[in-house]
Amino acid sequence: MDLNSDVGESFGRWTLGDDARVLEVVTSANVACGFHAGDASTLRACCSTAARLGVVVGAQVGYRDLAGFGRRFIDYDATELTDDVLYQIGALEALARASGTRVAYVKPHGALYNATVHHEGQARAVVEAVRAYDASLPVLGLPGSRLLEAAKAAGLRTVREAFADRAYTPEGTLLPRSEPGAVLHDPGEVAERVVRLVTDGTLVAVDGSTVRVEADSVCVHGDSPGAVEMATAVRDALVAEGVGLRAFA
Amino acid sequence: MDLNSDVGESFGRWTLGDDARVLEVVTSANVACGFHAGDASTLRACCSTAARLGVVVGAQVGYRDLAGFGRRFIDYDATELTDDVLYQIGALEALARASGTRVAYVKPHGALYNATVHHEGQARAVVEAVRAYDASLPVLGLPGSRLLEAAKAAGLRTVREAFADRAYTPEGTLLPRSEPGAVLHDPGEVAERVVRLVTDGTLVAVDGSTVRVEADSVCVHGDSPGAVEMATAVRDALVAEGVGLRAFA
Amino acid sequence: MDLNSDVGESFGRWTLGDDARVLEVVTSANVACGFHAGDASTLRACCSTAARLGVVVGAQVGYRDLAGFGRRFIDYDATELTDDVLYQIGALEALARASGTRVAYVKPHGALYNATVHHEGQARAVVEAVRAYDASLPVLGLPGSRLLEAAKAAGLRTVREAFADRAYTPEGTLLPRSEPGAVLHDPGEVAERVVRLVTDGTLVAVDGSTVRVEADSVCVHGDSPGAVEMATAVRDALVAEGVGLRAFA
Amino acid sequence: MDLNSDVGESFGRWTLGDDARVLEVVTSANVACGFHAGDASTLRACCSTAARLGVVVGAQVGYRDLAGFGRRFIDYDATELTDDVLYQIGALEALARASGTRVAYVKPHGALYNATVHHEGQARAVVEAVRAYDASLPVLGLPGSRLLEAAKAAGLRTVREAFADRAYTPEGTLLPRSEPGAVLHDPGEVAERVVRLVTDGTLVAVDGSTVRVEADSVCVHGDSPGAVEMATAVRDALVAEGVGLRAFA
Repeated sequence: MDLNSDVGESFGRWTLGDDARVLEVVTSANVACGFHAGDASTLRACCSTAARLGVVVGAQVGYRDLAGFGRRFIDYDATELTDDVLYQIGALEALARASGTRVAYVKPHGALYNATVHHEGQARAVVEAVRAYDASLPVLGLPGSRLLEAAKAAGLRTVREAFADRAYTPEGTLLPRSEPGAVLHDPGEVAERVVRLVTDGTLVAVDGSTVRVEADSVCVHGDSPGAVEMATAVRDALVAEGVGLRAFA
Repeated sequence: MDLNSDVGESFGRWTLGDDARVLEVVTSANVACGFHAGDASTLRACCSTAARLGVVVGAQVGYRDLAGFGRRFIDYDATELTDDVLYQIGALEALARASGTRVAYVKPHGALYNATVHHEGQARAVVEAVRAYDASLPVLGLPGSRLLEAAKAAGLRTVREAFADRAYTPEGTLLPRSEPGAVLHDPGEVAERVVRLVTDGTLVAVDGSTVRVEADSVCVHGDSPGAVEMATAVRDALVAEGVGLRAFA
Repeated sequence: MDLNSDVGESFGRWTLGDDARVLEVVTSANVACGFHAGDASTLRACCSTAARLGVVVGAQVGYRDLAGFGRRFIDYDATELTDDVLYQIGALEALARASGTRVAYVKPHGALYNATVHHEGQARAVVEAVRAYDASLPVLGLPGSRLLEAAKAAGLRTVREAFADRAYTPEGTLLPRSEPGAVLHDPGEVAERVVRLVTDGTLVAVDGSTVRVEADSVCVHGDSPGAVEMATAVRDALVAEGVGLRAFA
Repeated sequence: MDLNSDVGESFGRWTLGDDARVLEVVTSANVACGFHAGDASTLRACCSTAARLGVVVGAQVGYRDLAGFGRRFIDYDATELTDDVLYQIGALEALARASGTRVAYVKPHGALYNATVHHEGQARAVVEAVRAYDASLPVLGLPGSRLLEAAKAAGLRTVREAFADRAYTPEGTLLPRSEPGAVLHDPGEVAERVVRLVTDGTLVAVDGSTVRVEADSVCVHGDSPGAVEMATAVRDALVAEGVGLRAFA
């Protein structure tokens, strides 16, 4: 099983998250690419640490919106979105290469991630960028999303992710953040859920029913001290269960 | 002989220069990389046209300063400059690759170009980025500049350029723009100077003396209708003289 | 009657439109505020020319999106939109004040203008900024828009505008740009329509029917040589008809 | 005596410093204006808290350089610098006004502060902006700086500041940060120095000699937990000594 997390989201004088600690926990690092976060030196430091620790680097591409941290939907023209994604992948690739590693997958960030669950045009635009850059790069996303459908249709490898700290509906989709109980906070409970997901392919949904969730990677967070602890608890629980942790890419 | 010019300097709604016409004239295109100018779709369109016409693509890296068009000296930390240059080269490379071509050389833009003539730290920072990215990429610059010295010291190939429309001092350096007569405006005169430079290795300096100038590439401009005409006059004069035009890279 | 047009949309090295000529034609200038376009020196030059010519200055506030020229919908948080609008009004006010004039009204730009026709939250956010800044400033917008409704509800003065070069539906709304014939190109026809609108309060809709359109200001464009000619034709026709041209503010 | 500190330097998702705590300590707040740091909502929250606590708001204007946090010298054209400073003052003024307060002084930030100590052109450019905006606004800066000289020459009120946590040379200037011992870290020692400065007009220089330093305001920092503690220690020591704390503006 693969554990992925967002890193490289500092910018200039502003620090966010503890990349060094997160990179000790995960097997795949979604490194920001400068459009929603991440100056070039931050990205290079991330890639360098990832290379040293054997963590695989992915390009976490986002909207061009530093002020909004890529969390606001932007109604991009599809061609411009494709080109902005290409630009970001290439930029990160250069810093990865200079650090002795490579971009090994692509995952959209924030509002672009959310948009490509349902927005056909933006999903295809992201996929078109990956295809044009390197058709051997996998795309990481939500099972059932337009993004993974478009990636599959384009002949790209798709990687399905589950979220360690999110409640699920009985249909196996994420409970919207606006609902009470949508985000789980207890590291022990979260770790237990992830173990069950990985060993049994199921989760307990918000209504108590058991739901089947297929995942090739589990997303953990690292943008607060509590988040890193939770990620560590997830990792430790998986290791204790004898689950091998390795990057999908 | 190689003819190079700056292209890709439009940004979003704002158009600058006539890239399509310039790319019909030159053999090497210094394509902006998004930091001083150039949105991703502009860069891709440039690379695509260049690829179709057999024009070689170079990365014209600059300071992160859209408002100043990269024309204001910025006192960068050397490491941050190296990383920003890496970021830019990689970003352009992705768009070039998607257009069927590659980044084949690097040339600094504007105030970074001027700074690296004398500023040891910034010259080395740019060279370090090229070396870390791909040590087979040539660096295009002014003969005698710190930039080319640092590139040579790092084992990189250096390419010396002359300026078609600039007056030279008796020492063979550019007459500063602040001096009267520093910029030449007559296409016929400019074309004649370039022919002499290419066939004889000499120019007439501002004081009337003959000065030896060694150049592997001649820089022409394309940011105004008059500039494109002058570039065309230079090309036509060289062709009429039987000088073969081909990219250095 | 008032004639308004967008100006101040150059940015750094990039020029857009011919502000000096447009300001000779209009009575109210929608000056960009730096978020979708307009560096500070451009804005100051606009304000200065407007002050000299007696043209009234309005703040044309937009999304924070230089790369998209404010033409892409951004799903802003309402509070952040209010604060970004306040920031822009104040910034322009300082440059207007230093030029001997003041910001006398507010008009949203591009995608924000379009959004506030229907988007209740963004309409209110813009109005809240105007109210908080100076409740005596009028808001310029489309008749029937959420923007003008929210402005009226907040006790602000509203100014209704019509578009000189746009076709109207039989219901008196703008024919969407995606429809054939949505944009009119003949200066004579456009001038004639505006005269009828101003003197008679009616326009001929796209289906040939006569439709009543109430307007306190007519919007003309200036971002191309043809646009300035059309604006001039509109002005000349109104003057020939004996219509007094003066700013609403 | 006045205590000033920098606030409002968060940006979007990125938090810097603890503005709420700093504003409990100081009498004057140098609020960022969005060019080196500070999104509009952050600035408004700062102004609002300052207004509630009776802290005076100043505009801390900087270079347009979010990635560099305004800490890199930029070789601005003087007119553009004036206009960028005007833009920033006005932007902050709008948010201050909406919060029930006003911009009451101007202080340059970071590299612009450092540049205007010696750089005549940039010093004059900043002063010209203040003069054009509101000639009754004081300028806060280093005694002996070109900035305060230019401000005085332009008829503006000048306010001299001393730095609580910096070592001084026997000539009464700041020991450069590159020198060992340039920054003081012990809150007790710093508080004691400030008390002596305020009550006696002297400081002990780095060589042990006593040096006269005239100051109308003392600058404290708030960008780390330790910094806020030190600022509090300075305030408490002054209060214990019976020194009245009040804003100069």
